[in-house]
Amino acid sequence: MKFTRTLALAALVASAPALGFAQEAEVPAAVPTDVVWILNSVLFLVGGFLVFFMAAGFAMLEAGLVRSKNVSMQLLKNVSLFSFAAIFYYLIGYNLMYPLGDWAIDGVFSALFPAVGVLEAVGVDAAGADDYAYASTGSDFFFQLMFCAATASIVSGTLAERIKLWPFMIFTVILTAIIYPLQASWKWGGGFLDAMGFLDFAGSTVVHSVGGWAALVGAIILGPRLGKYKDGRTIPMPGSNLALATLGTFILWLGWFGFNGGSQLAMGSIGDVADVSRIFSNTNAAAAGGSVVALILTQVLYRKPDLTMVLNGALAGLVSITAEPLTPTLGEATLIGAVGGVIVVFAVPLLDKLRIDDVVGAIPVHLFAGIWGTIAVVFTNSDADLIVQLTSIAIVGGFVVVASAVVWIILRITMGIRVSEEDEIMGLDMSELGMEAYPEFSKG
Amino acid sequence: MKFTRTLALAALVASAPALGFAQEAEVPAAVPTDVVWILNSVLFLVGGFLVFFMAAGFAMLEAGLVRSKNVSMQLLKNVSLFSFAAIFYYLIGYNLMYPLGDWAIDGVFSALFPAVGVLEAVGVDAAGADDYAYASTGSDFFFQLMFCAATASIVSGTLAERIKLWPFMIFTVILTAIIYPLQASWKWGGGFLDAMGFLDFAGSTVVHSVGGWAALVGAIILGPRLGKYKDGRTIPMPGSNLALATLGTFILWLGWFGFNGGSQLAMGSIGDVADVSRIFSNTNAAAAGGSVVALILTQVLYRKPDLTMVLNGALAGLVSITAEPLTPTLGEATLIGAVGGVIVVFAVPLLDKLRIDDVVGAIPVHLFAGIWGTIAVVFTNSDADLIVQLTSIAIVGGFVVVASAVVWIILRITMGIRVSEEDEIMGLDMSELGMEAYPEFSKG
Amino acid sequence: MKFTRTLALAALVASAPALGFAQEAEVPAAVPTDVVWILNSVLFLVGGFLVFFMAAGFAMLEAGLVRSKNVSMQLLKNVSLFSFAAIFYYLIGYNLMYPLGDWAIDGVFSALFPAVGVLEAVGVDAAGADDYAYASTGSDFFFQLMFCAATASIVSGTLAERIKLWPFMIFTVILTAIIYPLQASWKWGGGFLDAMGFLDFAGSTVVHSVGGWAALVGAIILGPRLGKYKDGRTIPMPGSNLALATLGTFILWLGWFGFNGGSQLAMGSIGDVADVSRIFSNTNAAAAGGSVVALILTQVLYRKPDLTMVLNGALAGLVSITAEPLTPTLGEATLIGAVGGVIVVFAVPLLDKLRIDDVVGAIPVHLFAGIWGTIAVVFTNSDADLIVQLTSIAIVGGFVVVASAVVWIILRITMGIRVSEEDEIMGLDMSELGMEAYPEFSKG
Repeated sequence: MKFTRTLALAALVASAPALGFAQEAEVPAAVPTDVVWILNSVLFLVGGFLVFFMAAGFAMLEAGLVRSKNVSMQLLKNVSLFSFAAIFYYLIGYNLMYPLGDWAIDGVFSALFPAVGVLEAVGVDAAGADDYAYASTGSDFFFQLMFCAATASIVSGTLAERIKLWPFMIFTVILTAIIYPLQASWKWGGGFLDAMGFLDFAGSTVVHSVGGWAALVGAIILGPRLGKYKDGRTIPMPGSNLALATLGTFILWLGWFGFNGGSQLAMGSIGDVADVSRIFSNTNAAAAGGSVVALILTQVLYRKPDLTMVLNGALAGLVSITAEPLTPTLGEATLIGAVGGVIVVFAVPLLDKLRIDDVVGAIPVHLFAGIWGTIAVVFTNSDADLIVQLTSIAIVGGFVVVASAVVWIILRITMGIRVSEEDEIMGLDMSELGMEAYPEFSKG
Repeated sequence: MKFTRTLALAALVASAPALGFAQEAEVPAAVPTDVVWILNSVLFLVGGFLVFFMAAGFAMLEAGLVRSKNVSMQLLKNVSLFSFAAIFYYLIGYNLMYPLGDWAIDGVFSALFPAVGVLEAVGVDAAGADDYAYASTGSDFFFQLMFCAATASIVSGTLAERIKLWPFMIFTVILTAIIYPLQASWKWGGGFLDAMGFLDFAGSTVVHSVGGWAALVGAIILGPRLGKYKDGRTIPMPGSNLALATLGTFILWLGWFGFNGGSQLAMGSIGDVADVSRIFSNTNAAAAGGSVVALILTQVLYRKPDLTMVLNGALAGLVSITAEPLTPTLGEATLIGAVGGVIVVFAVPLLDKLRIDDVVGAIPVHLFAGIWGTIAVVFTNSDADLIVQLTSIAIVGGFVVVASAVVWIILRITMGIRVSEEDEIMGLDMSELGMEAYPEFSKG
Repeated sequence: MKFTRTLALAALVASAPALGFAQEAEVPAAVPTDVVWILNSVLFLVGGFLVFFMAAGFAMLEAGLVRSKNVSMQLLKNVSLFSFAAIFYYLIGYNLMYPLGDWAIDGVFSALFPAVGVLEAVGVDAAGADDYAYASTGSDFFFQLMFCAATASIVSGTLAERIKLWPFMIFTVILTAIIYPLQASWKWGGGFLDAMGFLDFAGSTVVHSVGGWAALVGAIILGPRLGKYKDGRTIPMPGSNLALATLGTFILWLGWFGFNGGSQLAMGSIGDVADVSRIFSNTNAAAAGGSVVALILTQVLYRKPDLTMVLNGALAGLVSITAEPLTPTLGEATLIGAVGGVIVVFAVPLLDKLRIDDVVGAIPVHLFAGIWGTIAVVFTNSDADLIVQLTSIAIVGGFVVVASAVVWIILRITMGIRVSEEDEIMGLDMSELGMEAYPEFSKG
């Protein structure tokens, strides 16, 4: 299909003067500034709907990796956490995340009355645009919201099969309204981590490790599922539907093009769109590296390849490249992702040894690979400083650990976070919802 | 990621004069008219493929909410109805919908020979474009077709588990070839409802209520499933696969960004792309509002949250915002969607009391929330007139009810629309298709 | 929604002079050359992520059509083949496919050190762009990679339920690193088939028949599944999850808009975007034609419509239109797709008569309909020459058959390609992976 390309432009150039409106004898090169703004906004809208779809990816991954008696509850949690995130990020989080913003908020007024002020007026023009050098506020909000929601989705998988619905929802609200936006403002809101020179392109630390830390703290406070660790052994509790888990992984992989590509924040120039193209290619390469390594490693270590490890390997590859998807070559991106795959294969059993029960493997994927990815920036981006990266990882981690622990402990004391033993054995679907995900399929 | 934004444009502006082809010392602002046309067409193509994917969303939602003995048939109906819609909307519907169109049809000639005339010629230029002030005809056709198909998808869920395949397909053909396009022309084809000042941005009435009315009339004429209502009680017939139903809901939610966003019909100016951004954000907010309210209401009313209500709550939120996704603030959009969630929670049991058997809840979601959304336009858009909105709802509803009833009754008399009792008890998969969706999983 | 369109442009034109940066009194028409490059790149990125998602489509289609005891393995193969394809197309294939390329490779240097040279530098400008008349190299690579991976996905379905994992992976590596790119270079790399005048817009032959030939040769060498053909009869082995198969079909259908639309290779002019619009509409029409014909034919022939035939009919329609999605009218596209549906309905039992065991029907869909589509170009494109089309089909087919046969035979001799009888009876999930896809659902 490729060889027609030189002809196409030649034809365009030749035909241009014949058009009615054409003013110039020659076709101009420069991108009009209105078009820059439009294209930047389109990047956010397309990137945003791709990242939105990651909510479905998380839901399918988690529904596939829990036992069938907890599937409906896991689905309910995923739909609901996204909805709560959408509401509370809008009410509180977005304003908190960009406190210095010159366009998103009208100071105290909109903080108190957040229903006004967030979006630009209908039919705005260049003079009325909140930031004519950037993109439409609505597209930015839409894109940023999806990152916040993704952070919450990470937590739900780890804590599956034993946490009560409502305490989890309350934690989600606090995470998306306050914890996530606050630390995100330190980097993406132009705060002190940004000033320090911390580099985290699309959020290996700001998104993935934050979800991972919150999940880790939650898993420790919540404790493992009944019967998971017995007499020093780990009892396998296989997922009920690996087709769904695979579908979820592919959907997440797809969404990641929006996640990383959209984080270029611009595609209104040759340089920006070429960079977005690099990012798409590198993101894909890292996922491939992570999954291939997990496939080979599980074959070598266990003599049988492990599908769930391959899926988590791909996801770990994606998390690993998220802190810097732009500067690596394709080979470097593949290797950065491959290390993510190694991390998953070794970290999953390690967590089990520590009796930390992470139902879907979200802690290795999002936290450990997130840390690795944040460190790996120094290998391909000369602006990165290892000490700054490590310090930032520690600061964000420390904050999220403390904040999450406080919230989880208060929830445990006040309303309890864990279902009763009988309910856990019966499964959350029947005990908390009274409905099964697959009511007609008998259990083997 | 955000703080690089001012630098990006500065760099662009600075570098522009250095480019080989650049003619101007300063970067121009205005969007060239060719670019407007291109961007408008791109909006339709991207919006169109998102709305296309809603066909998969409906298929998964419905396959998940029917019993396993009817899943294959429900899948077959969804694939086939889309295909029939694609063919008959092209053959008849599109020309019927835009009877005043200056570009889509060549009068009687193309009505008789529809294989010609619909799409612009290959490699068209500005002079040859059917409407240089709008977008490519192919992109418009593609986008409009998906709306027509969505209307038919709404019907299939309500009538599941008991309707015969072929009468349903014939109804689909008539719906997509005639009923939908005719009433759609009254508003979107510039007909009398448009002239009256009726406002329905993306089709709460024109699409969703139309599907809902057709489903309601069909459900009444067809009657409830065997055993659904016994001794004044409603017998629950739980869906066989809530994971699929959840996936379907997420896919529909995703597709709705194209549905509502694409209905801006333009993104070649700052104002248009900012409006599309508002629409994306508001559409998401309404879905969140609908699902959160359904979650809380079912918790309060029944002490157990109901996953299928939460899914339908999200969908009702989406339908509610469809008549006016542009003018509301984020808070208003959330509230408009939330009312949709309330409607679903109360209307589902109400229909059961009336012994109208709507297998997937499509009537509350698409008809009742569609009416609500059409009325709600008056709260945020000062151009809307309540009387006009109500009159238009009634006119469209009256027409669709009468037309659907005539078709359903003729089908019932001539070929019968309902399978035999034995076939219904056995399930349509074995009786009509001779294949099961999950042949290896025994029934509990 | 449509009637606002003329107003929109009028407003734009009127408001343009009021903008701060505007230099011209009139809005220009011509697309700036930078914008052309940007839009072409965006086409590849959006088309590319749609084609990426086809990997999920193949995975779901195949997982749904195999028996439940082989589902995990089929999922693993699909994820892994995509990952291997991504790595080896980058390492070897892409450079092999564009040997005359003036921008993708630096001759021997990058062939030896492929980690360098493939992508443009970060933040490239017009002068630094590899091909300012085309699109960003990263976007082109991303798009081309997805086509290569799709070719490999075709093979996995046919050979399901009996092939060993690692020989299949080795075949995938050779297919994606060498076989596919080499023959693709003959057409799309500007090789001798292109010089001969062979027309294959998006790859009915270059992609689909290649996957189909490799699958056919593999199926013959591998032999049918145990018990598939007994005493001259074909024993049905129904797929375990038709909901997944339907989902996979819809995802493939969605991805095909990127597959065919992106193959226009440009959308930076009125003519190009109008052509992409034609392609979207025609692609959809062909799928509709294929599925409707399969529905009607199976109803007439077998008295029961067949869901899997309808799904494969839609896919065959898509493959049929892939060689020329641009020039047909909508009616012609529907008919071209319909013939694809006929082919599937008759070819599936024919292959069984020949005792060629194609688990998912990939050979009829991708090979037979691919040949048909390549021939059908002559009906709508006057530049096509039937002899050239047939010769090209034969040359590509001959090469792929010989190359695949050599690889399959070497693999059979050296490491064996087929699992043991016991393993096949037990299912690959337990025997090769030690994990089941649906561990909790007992077999009926």
